[in-house]
Amino acid sequence: LQSIDFLITNLAQGNYASLARAITMVENELPGYDYLLRNLPTNRNTPVIGITGPPGAGKSTLVNSLLQALVSKHKVAVLSVDPSSPFNLGALLGDRIRMSEFYLHPNVFIRSLASRGALGGVCAKLIEILEVVQQANFDYIFAETVGVGQSELDIAGIANTTCVVMVPEAGDEVQTMKAGIMEIADIFIVNKADRAEADTFVRNLTSLVHDNTSEWAVPVLKCVATKHVGTAEVIEAIVKHTHFLITSDRKIQLLVDKVFHLVQAQRMRNVHRSDIGEKIRTQLSQGNFNLYGLVDSLV
Amino acid sequence: LQSIDFLITNLAQGNYASLARAITMVENELPGYDYLLRNLPTNRNTPVIGITGPPGAGKSTLVNSLLQALVSKHKVAVLSVDPSSPFNLGALLGDRIRMSEFYLHPNVFIRSLASRGALGGVCAKLIEILEVVQQANFDYIFAETVGVGQSELDIAGIANTTCVVMVPEAGDEVQTMKAGIMEIADIFIVNKADRAEADTFVRNLTSLVHDNTSEWAVPVLKCVATKHVGTAEVIEAIVKHTHFLITSDRKIQLLVDKVFHLVQAQRMRNVHRSDIGEKIRTQLSQGNFNLYGLVDSLV
Repeated sequence: LQSIDFLITNLAQGNYASLARAITMVENELPGYDYLLRNLPTNRNTPVIGITGPPGAGKSTLVNSLLQALVSKHKVAVLSVDPSSPFNLGALLGDRIRMSEFYLHPNVFIRSLASRGALGGVCAKLIEILEVVQQANFDYIFAETVGVGQSELDIAGIANTTCVVMVPEAGDEVQTMKAGIMEIADIFIVNKADRAEADTFVRNLTSLVHDNTSEWAVPVLKCVATKHVGTAEVIEAIVKHTHFLITSDRKIQLLVDKVFHLVQAQRMRNVHRSDIGEKIRTQLSQGNFNLYGLVDSLV
Repeated sequence: LQSIDFLITNLAQGNYASLARAITMVENELPGYDYLLRNLPTNRNTPVIGITGPPGAGKSTLVNSLLQALVSKHKVAVLSVDPSSPFNLGALLGDRIRMSEFYLHPNVFIRSLASRGALGGVCAKLIEILEVVQQANFDYIFAETVGVGQSELDIAGIANTTCVVMVPEAGDEVQTMKAGIMEIADIFIVNKADRAEADTFVRNLTSLVHDNTSEWAVPVLKCVATKHVGTAEVIEAIVKHTHFLITSDRKIQLLVDKVFHLVQAQRMRNVHRSDIGEKIRTQLSQGNFNLYGLVDSLV
């Protein structure tokens, strides 16, 4: 435990090797990980910015452009969350090639997180890892979803500020996507905004956003991430939203979700899919499988 | 409880009014809902077919075309699952207008399910509702995701057969989407396949699918759902996959996920977000908020 106290001290000094070790510890639930999480100072409030949106919207390119704009003056962490597949535990895409120019930059820490495969467990793990990253003196932490994007809404429940990245082609889909997206987005970013359809798309999106009567006016920002156009405005909006959160009830909602996920993960800690599988196989072979019988025996 | 036994009897006779009442009971956790679920006969094996894919791929139109092909000889249930938003509890989109021509057909039962808003709770609720629907003598049950599509992978863990619907435009995204989608898809359906880019897209997708070494060879099917072209082949593939499942280990995996979600929902039953919110507000105002302190007190 002394070595973990030492790790925590190094974390607070922004030591990347210690940070990487602490993340691995939490990710794999190595011995001492409980102690680590419970002994982190809780006074850090680094903004966590979720970058989400459909595949192909240019999320990675946008993050790259944000890094480009920030790294000279700020320390930035990027977590790439790969929802992967529930049937392929721990699969790691992790080819964050487009970001590689910043891999070695002293102000940048980049880490790919594979989904642990557990439906419902990904959120808790991400929350735990973010608690660790928040200790390491970053000015911004970006959590970017990679791949299919089914965890869009999940990330939104964890990030302080959720940026939804879209491309103009999706124009006729705005109406379809309204339901969920409208409510998770704190900031809309229309990437590849140099395309012909961009203005119509931005106009449609803006009119939908203005139907929203919440206390935060969701901005719709145009950018061309490959050319670093519009990136400054995105950063400005992120800073503005961070200030907004200080007085907002949304902050409480984020904490509630955090607590809920962590409680759920703890309560389910002794329930293992492999054990359930064994029980089901046995019961099926004995001809006495009963869904709720098994559920009740595990509750 | 006698009235619930009566409800179960009527369900087994395929009475739609009873089915609707039973679903409402489970959806809203009305008194007796536990008794209902625990007293359903467990011998039903109606295939549950998940229809998922990005917004605009034509999922509803495909379901409509499947209904058109099936209803003369088969009883079909359609559940439209609207993931809605975690911040907008119980919101119901539910404008299943495109399917309205079958609303009154005696062989069709259509129901929109709003997300209960609880992250992690949607799966358990859907599983419970499917248990009920499976009692009512259907030949096919379709569970279609509506809206943003963040629950794609969740549905995949619940359906016996997961159909992923895509459109040719997504051509250059095939590679991006590979990770998650490849592994949840039991059947790929390329809709709007009369478009120019369709053949290239199908070829790309097929070559990716063939990299897969699982025991089930995932078919890539072309269709034009608006014109009922290719629908018969989709049904054929669904039937083939249903037969495949009988001898596959995938069936056990589906049961494991079911049990896991139901256990999780039960274990979290007494944890309410509103209570957590109250506790956080109190602790913040007293200046003694501690994340893991609160988590541990609730575990």
